Amino acid sequence: MDGLSGHSQSRRIDIGHISLNVRESGSGPLMLFFHGITSNSAVFGPLMEKLSDRFTTVAVDQRGHGRSDKPEVGYEAGDYADDIAGLIRTLDRGRAILVGHSLGARNSVTAAARYPDLVRSVVAIDFTPFIEAEAFDALEARVNAGDQLFKDIAAIEAYLAARYPNIPADAIKVRAASGYQPTEGGLRPLASPTAMAQTARGLRADLAGAYRDVSRPVLIVRGEASKLVSPAALAKTSRLRPDLPVVVVPGADHYVNEVSPETTLKAITNFIDA
Amino acid sequence: MDGLSGHSQSRRIDIGHISLNVRESGSGPLMLFFHGITSNSAVFGPLMEKLSDRFTTVAVDQRGHGRSDKPEVGYEAGDYADDIAGLIRTLDRGRAILVGHSLGARNSVTAAARYPDLVRSVVAIDFTPFIEAEAFDALEARVNAGDQLFKDIAAIEAYLAARYPNIPADAIKVRAASGYQPTEGGLRPLASPTAMAQTARGLRADLAGAYRDVSRPVLIVRGEASKLVSPAALAKTSRLRPDLPVVVVPGADHYVNEVSPETTLKAITNFIDA
Repeated sequence: MDGLSGHSQSRRIDIGHISLNVRESGSGPLMLFFHGITSNSAVFGPLMEKLSDRFTTVAVDQRGHGRSDKPEVGYEAGDYADDIAGLIRTLDRGRAILVGHSLGARNSVTAAARYPDLVRSVVAIDFTPFIEAEAFDALEARVNAGDQLFKDIAAIEAYLAARYPNIPADAIKVRAASGYQPTEGGLRPLASPTAMAQTARGLRADLAGAYRDVSRPVLIVRGEASKLVSPAALAKTSRLRPDLPVVVVPGADHYVNEVSPETTLKAITNFIDA
Repeated sequence: MDGLSGHSQSRRIDIGHISLNVRESGSGPLMLFFHGITSNSAVFGPLMEKLSDRFTTVAVDQRGHGRSDKPEVGYEAGDYADDIAGLIRTLDRGRAILVGHSLGARNSVTAAARYPDLVRSVVAIDFTPFIEAEAFDALEARVNAGDQLFKDIAAIEAYLAARYPNIPADAIKVRAASGYQPTEGGLRPLASPTAMAQTARGLRADLAGAYRDVSRPVLIVRGEASKLVSPAALAKTSRLRPDLPVVVVPGADHYVNEVSPETTLKAITNFIDA
């Protein structure tokens, strides 16, 4: 909870219809972080460390992920967005800045479109409308392949390093240390396999309406080498909403905030401090 | 001065080393507007009308232009930026949001780089580093061709409509009505021809340093059909500062705020409200 040391504290928050695990640090205006599919709140540690001297930073394990509740069903955009709204209401610290990566970006923009009174602005990292079916096919294959039994942390790190070749080793260690739990015979993902499968399918739902309707400021961030958001998908999104500013991060693939934390940090503060 | 009617009032402000003519409207945080070469403060009327209910909007006749002082020399980026700093200090309403078009964008980014304590953020419309020499050649030829005697307002409007084929008729009328003065035998530009020639040459000075150094948030806005800022110049600028957000306005040429005032307005508020 003290922003000076950069350490965060974890707690579960009951928002009424579900309980979510969060990591919190710092003080100031509320800034919430939402991870991508199969990931968890720990991946935002480096960003929180830099931002917690000015913001109340709260990274969320989204439903089905990490140490949050994992209902059997309910993994559409609306389900995730309702969790965001419930969390902001429960925290009761005013409008929130939403920083979301991938699934988290989809959920954040959806929440901002549905609940403009709860959201100050959104930083939407590498998820737009108009993503091609082939890109979703590849994502879904990666997601479903993650449901494995690993013999130890080293095996997890080797698997993740191969799956995310551009994510630096320290960030791979964060994913390995935070996203798995002991089980008979080794370690398994904390994320629920059935929740992941439903979530991956739900990512294919049309997002153009939410981007068209959202009235709060949205910064669109794309990794220049992203295999999920193609240049064509970004161009169509900008045609739909030419007023939304865009940052393209050179050298980053889809995992922008883990591959290029410094540029991501500057992009966030340039947007929020304007 | 009343934001409700959208009417602005003009006055001259002595900032010590020079006197500048401004148009003011509204109340709230300070938002200053800086026009392009040969233009004047009147072109920002439509934006001021929409923003003056939330901001103290002040559009400036920059040195050599409109009804401001026109010294014989002193039309480099630093001279214009020092005027911006002097104006913000004299107005004494805290840090200013700077909205600049073309020459005004160059001057605003330069001022933000030199005087970060005076500037909150910058919206830099269609002027970046790395503009090609041929684009400056064409700009300089247009600027120098403007020093003419016109027999009446209709002749001015016809000239401007040909020079700016994408600017709507109502915005052409604003330029014609605000930028010329009666003289023997007709009407001549208010902008000083020698000041314009020096200013046009000064636009060629390297701007990469200012963009590299500026620490305040800058939104880069480009007209998709701009003949001044090429896609290559924008790409090089984004490579220099990947953290700065970009808006590309479809259908707009260089004169973004006059051709596409609605998208410009939304881009400004999305940036400032984040």
